[in-house]
Amino acid sequence: MSNYTPPTTDMGFLLHEVLRAENADIPGYEELTPDFTSAVLEEAGKLAREVLAPLNIVGDREGCVLENGVVRTPTGFKDAFDQMRAGGWTGLDCDPEYGGQGIPYLLGTAVGEMWVSSNMAFNMYQGLTHAAYSAIHTHGSEVQKATFLERMVSCEWTGTMNLTEPHCGTDLGLMRTKAEPTGDGTYKITGTKIFISAGDHDLSENVIHLVLAKIPGGPEGIKGVSLFIVPKYEVEDNGTLGGANNVSVGALEEKMGIHGNSTCVMNFDGAVGTLLGEEHKGLRAMFTMMNEARIGVGLQGYSQAESAYQASLTYARERLQGRAVTGVENPDGPADPLIVHPDIRRNLMDQKSFVEGARALTYWGAHMIDRDHRTSDDDAHGLITLLTPVIKGFLSDKGFEMAVQAQQVFGGHGYIEEHGMSQFVRDARITMIYEGANGVQALDLVGRKLAARGGKPLMAFFDMVKGFNKENSDNEDLQDGFLEPLKSASKDLQTAAMFFMENGMKNPNAALAGSYDFMHLFGHVALGYMWARMGLAASEALKAGNGDATFYKTKLATGRYYMARALPATKMHLARIQSGADPVMSLKPEEF
Amino acid sequence: MSNYTPPTTDMGFLLHEVLRAENADIPGYEELTPDFTSAVLEEAGKLAREVLAPLNIVGDREGCVLENGVVRTPTGFKDAFDQMRAGGWTGLDCDPEYGGQGIPYLLGTAVGEMWVSSNMAFNMYQGLTHAAYSAIHTHGSEVQKATFLERMVSCEWTGTMNLTEPHCGTDLGLMRTKAEPTGDGTYKITGTKIFISAGDHDLSENVIHLVLAKIPGGPEGIKGVSLFIVPKYEVEDNGTLGGANNVSVGALEEKMGIHGNSTCVMNFDGAVGTLLGEEHKGLRAMFTMMNEARIGVGLQGYSQAESAYQASLTYARERLQGRAVTGVENPDGPADPLIVHPDIRRNLMDQKSFVEGARALTYWGAHMIDRDHRTSDDDAHGLITLLTPVIKGFLSDKGFEMAVQAQQVFGGHGYIEEHGMSQFVRDARITMIYEGANGVQALDLVGRKLAARGGKPLMAFFDMVKGFNKENSDNEDLQDGFLEPLKSASKDLQTAAMFFMENGMKNPNAALAGSYDFMHLFGHVALGYMWARMGLAASEALKAGNGDATFYKTKLATGRYYMARALPATKMHLARIQSGADPVMSLKPEEF
Repeated sequence: MSNYTPPTTDMGFLLHEVLRAENADIPGYEELTPDFTSAVLEEAGKLAREVLAPLNIVGDREGCVLENGVVRTPTGFKDAFDQMRAGGWTGLDCDPEYGGQGIPYLLGTAVGEMWVSSNMAFNMYQGLTHAAYSAIHTHGSEVQKATFLERMVSCEWTGTMNLTEPHCGTDLGLMRTKAEPTGDGTYKITGTKIFISAGDHDLSENVIHLVLAKIPGGPEGIKGVSLFIVPKYEVEDNGTLGGANNVSVGALEEKMGIHGNSTCVMNFDGAVGTLLGEEHKGLRAMFTMMNEARIGVGLQGYSQAESAYQASLTYARERLQGRAVTGVENPDGPADPLIVHPDIRRNLMDQKSFVEGARALTYWGAHMIDRDHRTSDDDAHGLITLLTPVIKGFLSDKGFEMAVQAQQVFGGHGYIEEHGMSQFVRDARITMIYEGANGVQALDLVGRKLAARGGKPLMAFFDMVKGFNKENSDNEDLQDGFLEPLKSASKDLQTAAMFFMENGMKNPNAALAGSYDFMHLFGHVALGYMWARMGLAASEALKAGNGDATFYKTKLATGRYYMARALPATKMHLARIQSGADPVMSLKPEEF
Repeated sequence: MSNYTPPTTDMGFLLHEVLRAENADIPGYEELTPDFTSAVLEEAGKLAREVLAPLNIVGDREGCVLENGVVRTPTGFKDAFDQMRAGGWTGLDCDPEYGGQGIPYLLGTAVGEMWVSSNMAFNMYQGLTHAAYSAIHTHGSEVQKATFLERMVSCEWTGTMNLTEPHCGTDLGLMRTKAEPTGDGTYKITGTKIFISAGDHDLSENVIHLVLAKIPGGPEGIKGVSLFIVPKYEVEDNGTLGGANNVSVGALEEKMGIHGNSTCVMNFDGAVGTLLGEEHKGLRAMFTMMNEARIGVGLQGYSQAESAYQASLTYARERLQGRAVTGVENPDGPADPLIVHPDIRRNLMDQKSFVEGARALTYWGAHMIDRDHRTSDDDAHGLITLLTPVIKGFLSDKGFEMAVQAQQVFGGHGYIEEHGMSQFVRDARITMIYEGANGVQALDLVGRKLAARGGKPLMAFFDMVKGFNKENSDNEDLQDGFLEPLKSASKDLQTAAMFFMENGMKNPNAALAGSYDFMHLFGHVALGYMWARMGLAASEALKAGNGDATFYKTKLATGRYYMARALPATKMHLARIQSGADPVMSLKPEEF
């Protein structure tokens, strides 16, 4: 089934009425006029709907195949990839110096959402390339940039990120892959990497692997890790492809989902590589692109929920089953549609209010990244750094949960593969795991980000929410169901942060035992804040008599649902946090 | 991976120290001595661990195959099935008159848990047979009982339940399958049924289909549905197998999980059947076994969580990653095991406290079913009828959620199929859907069960919790973290029930919009109550100096975790319920 409809109206609402992009005073944003963004979104939406979405279930069914050491992608992927390249979509927000279009990350994010909603596994091929491009763009030498970037912007060559090894994922200090200097400025890379997305395939001429490895004799643990560029085919000085490097695919992983993406075990047997950035500073190079990559995973989470939501809404409108308890609504049919039933409605509203709130938070995050990168705004940098684990962890957890709810609307028909609902769930599941499992996001948030810069970004967030509530205390639309719940939820978040401050110094476990709940508590407040901002924009449009009143009223009603039905979770998370470390840590490992 | 360890110690604790089975004054319970139950549990556990568990992943990988109209089960299933039959396990709690062992349902439930934990898809073949056996046992004529029961008790013949059709699942009134009287007392059944678990396979000589169908000229809708026995091979008067009936497998469904079970599209083309029970009373016949079937699905939910928990606990103890924030705990290793990290511990405690609470609730439910069936205790009947949708809906939702958490402990290794964690998640997912999707359970609970018998069973539940708190108010172990949280959670449940009473009459949607939350609220209180009872048993054992003190202290600590970390959800559910119908119903279907 591919009935994906790009939510371009919602996107336009966020870009222009909530974030007011064209007035944001960020270089490059002046071109983000409604005419321009809608042209881009419509064009991208067409490709997503017509080309990528129909291939989603094909990718799931066929998967990738390893034959004679070469990976073959599912039917249609190569053609679709060529269309993406031909349209210039792969370099949308890349540096024009290397053939990119230089469009703000904000608009790139909206376009990316459509690629991911329509076909997440497919989009990873260019997504990984973009990540590798960013690393080389930021840390590469002029020669490296000249050699690789233009071809990666066009996806003539694609990229990968090689971090994980069989015995180490989160704890990269345990890494065993070695990089031995050859004396001519290159290194021989030897080791095995696992879970390498887009590790090999038939979509591009070359695959540019970024590989973390240790140079013998360097510092122990995480401080001795360096990053290397290791192409599948070596690249001659004149830029043409040389012979095959000593890189091979050991196996394709059999996974729960994202079957359309080739997840490889990669073997490096003395493969030739060049150092990217400085010796032993590989992790730092890797982490410069982590904010973007993690926000991208949060986007994947809610984008799967968006597609699943669309499908479940269609099904709820069409499937006839039972009668409305308040009286027959479809007298000419043998039964009423599912959507008349309050519990189905509850399910759909959960989904809708989450997805739209998540989209707003993600775009706001992308907006901050633009402000950080394009104006070197330190406050924006601090705030997006703080929010990144929330966006990654909360949106992927909830995105999965909502995909499960969407599947539930289908009853037994959701469990069979035919309708594609199982695929949304299976694909969404990975977003809670990769780019740092969500427990690690929570640890990052509570262990590092909260106290970063003396807690200034956290205070800035609270001030922002407080300021919003104060400035809009007279708005009657917001008085009705927005301001009080947001205030109360934000207070719960402050109380939780205070609890960590008071108890975490004495006993770090008191903070860490509540880290996961804190991430979710923060996520609820952040989405609540975004809903308040969307509510304000809708209220103002209604007052001004602009546009489609039903659209804005629907926004207000959906926001009120989120406030009434989602925000009560903050008190639960707070209570769990305040119970501290004792309940969590009371059993010894051997007593479980 | 099959490292399933039957939790026989926990089972014994529930049977003898919490439920005190042998003193329960129920016919047949006098034989449930610790010696007897432990012998049964050990023997069954051995089969589960050694025979069924290793086949779990085999079933998932191979699935069932339809060849020339015949379904072939995965490698090893037939041998294992024969071992189950040879051991007399298939008739454990069946009527001795037909070759069963007549053991109380309570002990049968504990044994069943091990079958399900070790291999849920496999166990469904005998589970469906048991359901069909129960229906024939209760509603069959003497001839039908003599013809079918003995062979179904031994699983020489297996059974199925044919309800769903392509266009109707929950709303069976829309059914199209026809049963035309032939004049000789039999009927010709014609129609297509879908999602038929164990619909066809190579494990038994015959498959006895119970089929819902409409006799032409009968009442419209649900009131015109009758139940029929339709064997795959007709049965001669002397009990031997005759020719093939006009029953065929249209297709095998491709599903998200339970691949080892054959889920069939069944075509009946004028197949010969006999009426089971009365004309047009088919649904009533079907529903007599619904309590048991639904409790069985709740059991499936937590049993998958149990297996997933065991695997994640082993992994958390063995996988070395990072260092404890409070100081190195494994100085001789390159890193500490995952289990030192507070967020991993939080994850494991969530799982452990849920599974043990869920097991207690399920066994208590089975105990009530025995009391109902063996002593015709009306109060037990009322209470288990009330609790059935809670057991089915809450335990399957949470069982799935906990399987997802267990998978999360494995990081990327949980997403690949190799470790079997994906399978637990995919298999558990169906429990939220079949035997009435969980939204239907919530509707049943709030729409029917709450007000049943003038609300007497609900009041009895509240009185039970209140009585427990009062009787044990002096117990210091329970004062520490049990009594207050239980009291508060129970009060939330009462407030929610009161809200429905006050608002539901005026506007049924005000109750139904909160039905799902009510089911979860009730589930939390029920598990809290079970934890309090387990806490009491542990406290008494500790005071008496009986047995292994560490076991009982662990019970108390795990119970305190549930109280501190799970019960705060009741306030969230209450707040959602109290927000009423407006947020849920404010959008028109076309405004979504």
